[in-house]
Amino acid sequence: MSAAVNRQIVLVNRPVGEARESDFALVEAPVPEPGAGQFLCRTIYLSLDPYMRGRMNAGASYARPAELGKAMVGGTVSQVIRSEHPGFAVRDLVLGYDGWQEYAVSDGKGVRKLDPRQGHISYALGVLGMPGMTAYVALLDIGRPKVGETVVVSAAAGAVGSVVGQIARIKGCRAVGIAGSDEKCSFVVNELHFDACVNYKTGDLGQALARACPAGIDVYYDNVAGPVLEAVLRQINRGARIPLVGLISQYNAPKPPPGPNLVSLLIKRALIQGFIVSDHEDRRDEFLRDVSGWLREGKLKYREDVVQGLENAPRAFLGLFQGKNFGKLIVQLSPDPTKPGTA
Amino acid sequence: MSAAVNRQIVLVNRPVGEARESDFALVEAPVPEPGAGQFLCRTIYLSLDPYMRGRMNAGASYARPAELGKAMVGGTVSQVIRSEHPGFAVRDLVLGYDGWQEYAVSDGKGVRKLDPRQGHISYALGVLGMPGMTAYVALLDIGRPKVGETVVVSAAAGAVGSVVGQIARIKGCRAVGIAGSDEKCSFVVNELHFDACVNYKTGDLGQALARACPAGIDVYYDNVAGPVLEAVLRQINRGARIPLVGLISQYNAPKPPPGPNLVSLLIKRALIQGFIVSDHEDRRDEFLRDVSGWLREGKLKYREDVVQGLENAPRAFLGLFQGKNFGKLIVQLSPDPTKPGTA
Repeated sequence: MSAAVNRQIVLVNRPVGEARESDFALVEAPVPEPGAGQFLCRTIYLSLDPYMRGRMNAGASYARPAELGKAMVGGTVSQVIRSEHPGFAVRDLVLGYDGWQEYAVSDGKGVRKLDPRQGHISYALGVLGMPGMTAYVALLDIGRPKVGETVVVSAAAGAVGSVVGQIARIKGCRAVGIAGSDEKCSFVVNELHFDACVNYKTGDLGQALARACPAGIDVYYDNVAGPVLEAVLRQINRGARIPLVGLISQYNAPKPPPGPNLVSLLIKRALIQGFIVSDHEDRRDEFLRDVSGWLREGKLKYREDVVQGLENAPRAFLGLFQGKNFGKLIVQLSPDPTKPGTA
Repeated sequence: MSAAVNRQIVLVNRPVGEARESDFALVEAPVPEPGAGQFLCRTIYLSLDPYMRGRMNAGASYARPAELGKAMVGGTVSQVIRSEHPGFAVRDLVLGYDGWQEYAVSDGKGVRKLDPRQGHISYALGVLGMPGMTAYVALLDIGRPKVGETVVVSAAAGAVGSVVGQIARIKGCRAVGIAGSDEKCSFVVNELHFDACVNYKTGDLGQALARACPAGIDVYYDNVAGPVLEAVLRQINRGARIPLVGLISQYNAPKPPPGPNLVSLLIKRALIQGFIVSDHEDRRDEFLRDVSGWLREGKLKYREDVVQGLENAPRAFLGLFQGKNFGKLIVQLSPDPTKPGTA
């Protein structure tokens, strides 16, 4: 069961502006030994998410920066392979925050056991995890969608956006996505059953939004900020609500670009509110109950973009900022014991 | 009682960019005759407010534009001088929306009678009227100040800002003003008893704000937008609330300038919400009860900047955008019968 080498991707440089593959390095470390009250896990899936770009910076954000020379931070689904912890047994499947590495030791703090009968274990990094809960809580609590309203979401083919639009539909709204390719738009409309999806890279976004939202925009779930937010603001209805959940358009900017003019916010008595999912742990049970129910009933579909091998994590991560991923981006580091015969 | 001539200031040009005196013209019209169910008033006080710049534009905002060739729109305190209306008698003092002219006929719709025993009649255009209610409702409903928090307000010596800071103090907060001259700052601190006031025209606004707000900013009542909002956003606390009530910094801009980068909003889970007081008629009684009570108890002070003569209205109005007024700007058009011996 023991392995000699723990491969890790460590942060070796804090980028200014666009992050590059050379900001990361693949290193080999000894597999750590679990002490009393600890256990050793092997990583099966690593989550790659846009927020990680912020952790590469030195400045304090809402969470501490990743440390130089240490494995990059990130959510993981793992299997316990040795245990000196009374609460965790060998073969347990767990959701943790072990980062970009093949093995990690844990004392169980912040770790949750996963039951594969309740859904694919990788879903705990996506639709049933942080991105899904971000979609659910920010849409319902800040967006407050009402039956018949129009809900627009950017990065609509991504981990968060794809869930937002489908929940909007479940709540009786018109769901309109914004995405960066015709292929993504077609997926969003044909597979996820959004009412419409606009490709922001072709043609005039304002005109396309106006066509897709004939009754205006009541809720805009913003994952990107930048020019898309600006175009949306020109078409919001009175009393519109805008959860601001991500600013992916500017995570790689060397200094913060200007934002949108806010005159529409005043004229339309609209609201923009920032959202960080970790503030809302109290909503987890309700979120899991609703979203796992919708998955079971087939009301909610979920797509993963699975990259094989830790060594490919940096390139895949950087692709998030170029719109390359299609669905929730995860990296598979070792075989999934719940899917015999797969990688 | 009748007068031959009704002097009016009419809008003769819709400015692009900065408004000028030549956009207005002083004209003489016959004094109108009240028909059945109408009354004729003589204007005593005319209110001048920044929102009027928006009404000079052709485009639809939250209210209809002022009409070319007609008297500019505006709130007025007047006295009834002839009446064919059963509900209004000669000598009644009324709050109306008669615009920039000396006489007007009304059918009483939207008109409220004023009782001089309840406060100076001109206060109905300021602390006990639209600006005061704007201060009260947006601060309490969107700002939601809690005891011990820091409330910052821009245009702090103005009609709205001066009331905001004083209500913040009444609610147990640290009140910090932002104003455009040392004289205004001194008034705000020494007369209105704000805890501090920052002159945004001298020195580094960010540093001055940091000194004035050692515990950060919990509420920012925004009358101006622009660079001041940008500087404030860098110093907001987690969960900050920002009522967006005016954008005076850009009312004269030929096209909307960019706004602030919104990264702080996300990181701090903060909220910006647009506000228009006319949506909140249901709060009027509570507002009048509280604010008139605070005025009587001496907890709330109010300063007016009174300009004499209709012909001086355009220049005084344009001064609002250069920070020239000091307190609530009103124009006196005829003698105030409640203040014998004054102009």
